[in-house]
Amino acid sequence: MSPFRASAPFTDSWEHFDLSLRDGVATVEFTRPDRLNALTFDVYADLRDLLLELPHRDDVRVLVLRGRGRGFCSGGDVDEIIGATLEMDPDGLLDFTRMTGETVRAMRECPVPVVAAVHGVAAGAGAVLALAADFRLVERSARFAFLFTRVGLAGGDMGAAYLLPRVVGLGHATRLLMLGDTVSAEEADRIGLVSELVEDGGLDEAAARLAERLATGPAFAYAQTKALLSRELDMGLSASVELEAVTQALLMKTEDYAEFHAAFTGKRKPEWKGR
Amino acid sequence: MSPFRASAPFTDSWEHFDLSLRDGVATVEFTRPDRLNALTFDVYADLRDLLLELPHRDDVRVLVLRGRGRGFCSGGDVDEIIGATLEMDPDGLLDFTRMTGETVRAMRECPVPVVAAVHGVAAGAGAVLALAADFRLVERSARFAFLFTRVGLAGGDMGAAYLLPRVVGLGHATRLLMLGDTVSAEEADRIGLVSELVEDGGLDEAAARLAERLATGPAFAYAQTKALLSRELDMGLSASVELEAVTQALLMKTEDYAEFHAAFTGKRKPEWKGR
Amino acid sequence: MSPFRASAPFTDSWEHFDLSLRDGVATVEFTRPDRLNALTFDVYADLRDLLLELPHRDDVRVLVLRGRGRGFCSGGDVDEIIGATLEMDPDGLLDFTRMTGETVRAMRECPVPVVAAVHGVAAGAGAVLALAADFRLVERSARFAFLFTRVGLAGGDMGAAYLLPRVVGLGHATRLLMLGDTVSAEEADRIGLVSELVEDGGLDEAAARLAERLATGPAFAYAQTKALLSRELDMGLSASVELEAVTQALLMKTEDYAEFHAAFTGKRKPEWKGR
Repeated sequence: MSPFRASAPFTDSWEHFDLSLRDGVATVEFTRPDRLNALTFDVYADLRDLLLELPHRDDVRVLVLRGRGRGFCSGGDVDEIIGATLEMDPDGLLDFTRMTGETVRAMRECPVPVVAAVHGVAAGAGAVLALAADFRLVERSARFAFLFTRVGLAGGDMGAAYLLPRVVGLGHATRLLMLGDTVSAEEADRIGLVSELVEDGGLDEAAARLAERLATGPAFAYAQTKALLSRELDMGLSASVELEAVTQALLMKTEDYAEFHAAFTGKRKPEWKGR
Repeated sequence: MSPFRASAPFTDSWEHFDLSLRDGVATVEFTRPDRLNALTFDVYADLRDLLLELPHRDDVRVLVLRGRGRGFCSGGDVDEIIGATLEMDPDGLLDFTRMTGETVRAMRECPVPVVAAVHGVAAGAGAVLALAADFRLVERSARFAFLFTRVGLAGGDMGAAYLLPRVVGLGHATRLLMLGDTVSAEEADRIGLVSELVEDGGLDEAAARLAERLATGPAFAYAQTKALLSRELDMGLSASVELEAVTQALLMKTEDYAEFHAAFTGKRKPEWKGR
Repeated sequence: MSPFRASAPFTDSWEHFDLSLRDGVATVEFTRPDRLNALTFDVYADLRDLLLELPHRDDVRVLVLRGRGRGFCSGGDVDEIIGATLEMDPDGLLDFTRMTGETVRAMRECPVPVVAAVHGVAAGAGAVLALAADFRLVERSARFAFLFTRVGLAGGDMGAAYLLPRVVGLGHATRLLMLGDTVSAEEADRIGLVSELVEDGGLDEAAARLAERLATGPAFAYAQTKALLSRELDMGLSASVELEAVTQALLMKTEDYAEFHAAFTGKRKPEWKGR
């Protein structure tokens, strides 16, 4: 979106997940299917860095997160993360937990809409990554587990205790985070955790359809919608109304707003430029 | 509610909607049925000014919003607002968007309960006006559309990105505001956007019943309930508990609180005075 | 949890409800079944004081609230509270309403999970006590009524206007608090007010099962989960993510976190120490 980048290079190749880019749709695929895509320190670091680079690139309109193999992501690897952290000093542990939180914050502050395409299991940090996305496409047989207390940690990890009550309400969030039980796609849908429930086998098509729609739509309008939603969770009514007033006045000076009116009066479909 | 008004006159006649008043129930009816009650600059201005006068009048106990003809309100008029804004300077645009936000803020800060009686379409700013009401009575065939991104604007307009996540949760709000898709009454009901789902043809009766109930009830208690709900969205737990403690101590000195006890011990219905 | 207590004694016997303690499960049973467990000034005072002592005791892992007889709790007693308050001065009224709010705040800030086992009626302050619990186990024939406006008071009492919108959303909360209508267990379940819906007659078993699970689990992890959920309702995303990062780094130094890993690699169930 922003062209402002001077000396800092972009990363050439991401070694800890697959990144593909086509027609404005960037797709991150977790690629440790034999470990149910369990996360390692390096996957986290790469994901954080990609999310911090994205706002400076102008070729990405939407980001899709997905998992290779039998599931989306099973969370932090029991050996490579849990085992390793048992040997670490307090300052090293905080470096790690801050990196994971920074990943979620970058997802929420990134101007590009993020779509989580969830099949199989989304557990632990995998569930939080899905939670931090803007859209959750969820296959009917998928399941979530915010299982942090089951490994002896606090149920709120990477911002989950902030995000989940704002998505499903405090009652459900308390139950899910305190007990760490598995949540079926149907229950997730019932409580508001699912953007679109998809029949098994239909996830790729649903993700492609939504991603294309977001990639070809009015990108600047989408980016500001996401910014308003994210920021106003932490703002009062009066300031929110003012922020929206200034935002819309700015948007009314964009090409896309004029294009809508021209298309409408010309009885044709608008061709969005994203600016 | 408040008697405090000195030199400033009240508006004699509202020219851009119908305002009727009977038994404490004020009804605003949008009166451009041939345009699906699309809003003009003047409708906005009148609505804002009425909402700012209401707290100073003592003859209105409840406000009902409704639309004449086939629907509730289709939002800003494509010609008279969208077309006109294309010619405006930044400062004029901000004057306009601030007026629309002020209308919503006045609805939320107005001590009188606001009932939106929704049939047919509630789109764009029409959907936000319904969202900002305290009660949404919705006919089964009605539908909402927060369609701002479809005209090239940000999905959060007039406070929608503040209010909608607090009504339906962040997940549904993101989907509705980002995509701008039409939402059926059934879906709106499922996600918490509907106070009472009404069968087609039953809206007038349902609105009259709720309005009468609110108009004859303990008005000061209702006003403070609304104030607590609105203010505490922006407050922490500790301050909220203190605000409620002081509020209830004040209410315990009202005639209505004594009236409840007298009626209860006298085995009769209370006659509310509203003070 | 905290061992830090010096001269201040603990209360020997609670005279206005039954307190039992077994295997880390403290149970408060309201004991005025002939008055549907209506609250008196003394019940409130004892409940507040118990909740303020709990964090200083190390023998309680979970607190269960329940009612003896036909229901959970019908709220403030019409004679002993409502009648009495009619004779009180403003400063005395504020002393009372502050005590009730302090009870709710103590429930939310108490590190021990609180389970409300609700059968029959939970009305007025009884409904708010259930609302302030972390878990609401609700029998199918139970019902809630936030009936404050029906006695001439504001619908927000003891923090209800803060908590209820964060549990069920602003739309439902407005309807429930403004009108004070009775809400069936089924409706409560539909809108997110129920943690677990229990068939009639099954409440004791469901409460015992959940309480035992919470009492034998990783207590420090549970306590911090509750603290994160409560505090982050009042915090922004960025600060929340930092609080969770520091919290998890601390938890990664606990015996329970090491115990999880040892149990997992040893293919056995973890034995939680709660520290």
